[in-house]
Amino acid sequence: MAEKSKILVIGATGYIGKFLVEAAAEQGHQTFALVRESAVSDPVKGKLIQSFKASGVTVVYGDLYDHDSLVKAVKQVDVVISVVTFQQILDQSKILDAIKKAGNIMRFIPSEFGNDVDRTNPVEPAKTNFAEKAKIRRAIEAQGIPYTYIISACFAGIFLPTMAQPGATAPPRDKVVILGDGTAKAVFNLEQDVATYVIKTVDDPRTVNKSLYIKPPHNIYSFNDLVALWEKKIDKVLEKTYVPEEHVLKQIGGTPPPMDFMSAISHAVFIKGDQTNFQIEASFGHEASQLYPDVKYTTVDEYLHQFV
Amino acid sequence: MAEKSKILVIGATGYIGKFLVEAAAEQGHQTFALVRESAVSDPVKGKLIQSFKASGVTVVYGDLYDHDSLVKAVKQVDVVISVVTFQQILDQSKILDAIKKAGNIMRFIPSEFGNDVDRTNPVEPAKTNFAEKAKIRRAIEAQGIPYTYIISACFAGIFLPTMAQPGATAPPRDKVVILGDGTAKAVFNLEQDVATYVIKTVDDPRTVNKSLYIKPPHNIYSFNDLVALWEKKIDKVLEKTYVPEEHVLKQIGGTPPPMDFMSAISHAVFIKGDQTNFQIEASFGHEASQLYPDVKYTTVDEYLHQFV
Repeated sequence: MAEKSKILVIGATGYIGKFLVEAAAEQGHQTFALVRESAVSDPVKGKLIQSFKASGVTVVYGDLYDHDSLVKAVKQVDVVISVVTFQQILDQSKILDAIKKAGNIMRFIPSEFGNDVDRTNPVEPAKTNFAEKAKIRRAIEAQGIPYTYIISACFAGIFLPTMAQPGATAPPRDKVVILGDGTAKAVFNLEQDVATYVIKTVDDPRTVNKSLYIKPPHNIYSFNDLVALWEKKIDKVLEKTYVPEEHVLKQIGGTPPPMDFMSAISHAVFIKGDQTNFQIEASFGHEASQLYPDVKYTTVDEYLHQFV
Repeated sequence: MAEKSKILVIGATGYIGKFLVEAAAEQGHQTFALVRESAVSDPVKGKLIQSFKASGVTVVYGDLYDHDSLVKAVKQVDVVISVVTFQQILDQSKILDAIKKAGNIMRFIPSEFGNDVDRTNPVEPAKTNFAEKAKIRRAIEAQGIPYTYIISACFAGIFLPTMAQPGATAPPRDKVVILGDGTAKAVFNLEQDVATYVIKTVDDPRTVNKSLYIKPPHNIYSFNDLVALWEKKIDKVLEKTYVPEEHVLKQIGGTPPPMDFMSAISHAVFIKGDQTNFQIEASFGHEASQLYPDVKYTTVDEYLHQFV
C-alpha cells in the first residue's frame, strides 16, 4: 500500500482549517499547517497552534503574501488544501504560483466548501464571491494542476444550532421564520465529517479533477421537513412565518455588508434550492458518502438531539 | 457664492450609498450615481434607480472594473464618493487610476465609514480589512488626490434596533449581553445624518486632506449607559450578562466568515473603545457637529424612542 500523502493546510487556524488539520493527522497523514508567526502570540490561535503540535502536526511559519515562504512550504508536501477566508479567494493565485514553482503537487483543494459555484447563480453580494471562486477554478484548470473541488453545502454547526434563524442561540421553541415556501432541499454536514471526507479524497484517483459533493442521504432536508423533525423532537408545533422571495430580496438589499452575504447565501440555498437542484454526473463529480461508505457521518437527526 | 460641486457616488445602490445620493440631491448638488446596467433589471436595485431618477439624479452606467466607463463618469463631476463594499476596498485603486486620468477631481471620499483605521488595531479578520483601507489612504496621499476620510463610527440602524445583540429584531426586554465590562464609549449615528455631514463637507476647505469624525456629543455612549437609557425608557431592569474579553476573542475564532468580521468590529468598539480612545487634533481632523452645528442630528435617545 502506497504511503499516505503529505498534506499542507493553508488557513489552518480558521473555522474549517482546524478540523482539516486534525482530520489529516488522525488519518495518518504527515500534516503541515501554514501559520503566520504573529499567530503564535494570538491568545486563541496560539493555543490552537500548540494543540496542532501536540497532535504531531508540523507548524510551518509563512504567509500567503510571502512567495518564498509559500514555495518552501509547498515543496515539503504532496497535497495542498486552501481554506483561506472569502476575502482572499482571488489571492489564491499566489498559491497557484507557488505550486507551479514547486512542481511537486499531486492534488490541490481550493477554498470552496459551500455550493457548486459553476452550477448556481446567487444574487449579490454572493454572486461576486462565487465568480471569484469560479475564476480560481479556471486558473487551476488552465495551469493543469490536479484538483478536487469540495462542495460541502451547509455547515451543520452554523445552520442547525439556530435552525438558520439569524442570531438565535438555540433552535426555536415558539416561532420559526421560513424563507420562501420551505420546500427547497438543502444539505447540512457536520464540520468534522466534511474534514474527514476531504482527507479521504486527497489520495483517491476517482476524484482527480472532479468535484466531491458531500450530500449523504440522511442530511438532505427541505426547511419544512427540518422544522417537522424538530417539532417531533420537542413534541411541540411551532408558529411558522413564511417570507416570500420578493421580501427576502428586498431584505438583502437593505442589509449592510458583511451580513448581506449570509442573506444572499440563504436565499440561494433555502429558496432556490441551489444545493440540490441538479444531478451529479460522473463526468464532473461524485457523492462522498457513496465513495466512502465506511465513514460514519453524523446525521441531522442525531445532531439536533443535543438541543432537545 | 460658488456653485455647488457635482458629486459622483460609486456604490450608489448599496447600504450607505443610497443615503449619500439622496443627501447630495437634497442639498442641491448635481448628483451622479454610477450603477451597473445589470442593476436596472434587479428587482430591488431597479426600484432604487427609478427613485434616483425621480429625484433628479443622473444615473451613469458603468463599472468599477471598466476603466473607460469610470473615467467618463469621473470627468463629469468635481467630487467622487466611493462606498464600494468591504470586499472591494483594494479595488479602489481603479478609482484612483480614473481620477488621475480625468485630472479634474477636487475631493475624493474613499470607502471608510467606520473606525479610524490609522488609529485603531482590531483583531482579525477586521485587521486585514483595516490594513486594506489604510493602504488605499497611503495611495491617495502619494498621488496627491485631495481627500476627506469619513469616520462615522457605528451606524444607528445596525446597532441600535437590536442593541448590538446579534440577530435580535428589537432591543431586549428581558436579558442583554454586554461585551467586556461595558464601560468603553462608542458612537452611534443615523445613516441619514452621516450622509448629510458627508455632503456638507465635500466643498468645505477645512476638511481637505483631513478626517471628518462624526461624534456628536449626544450620540456617545458606553454600553452600560446605553442599556441604562433603554431601561429607563421601558421602565424595566434587564438581566445583564457580561462576557469577558478572553471569551469574546475565543468566540471570534470560532465564528465562521463573514460573521467573524462583525464580531471583531464589536470587540474593537465595545471592549477596546477604539471609537473614542484618542483625541481629535486639528492637524489631522475635525468633529462634524462642531463644524456643522446647524445640522439637527438624530440623537440616540430620540432614535431609541421608536422601539419603546
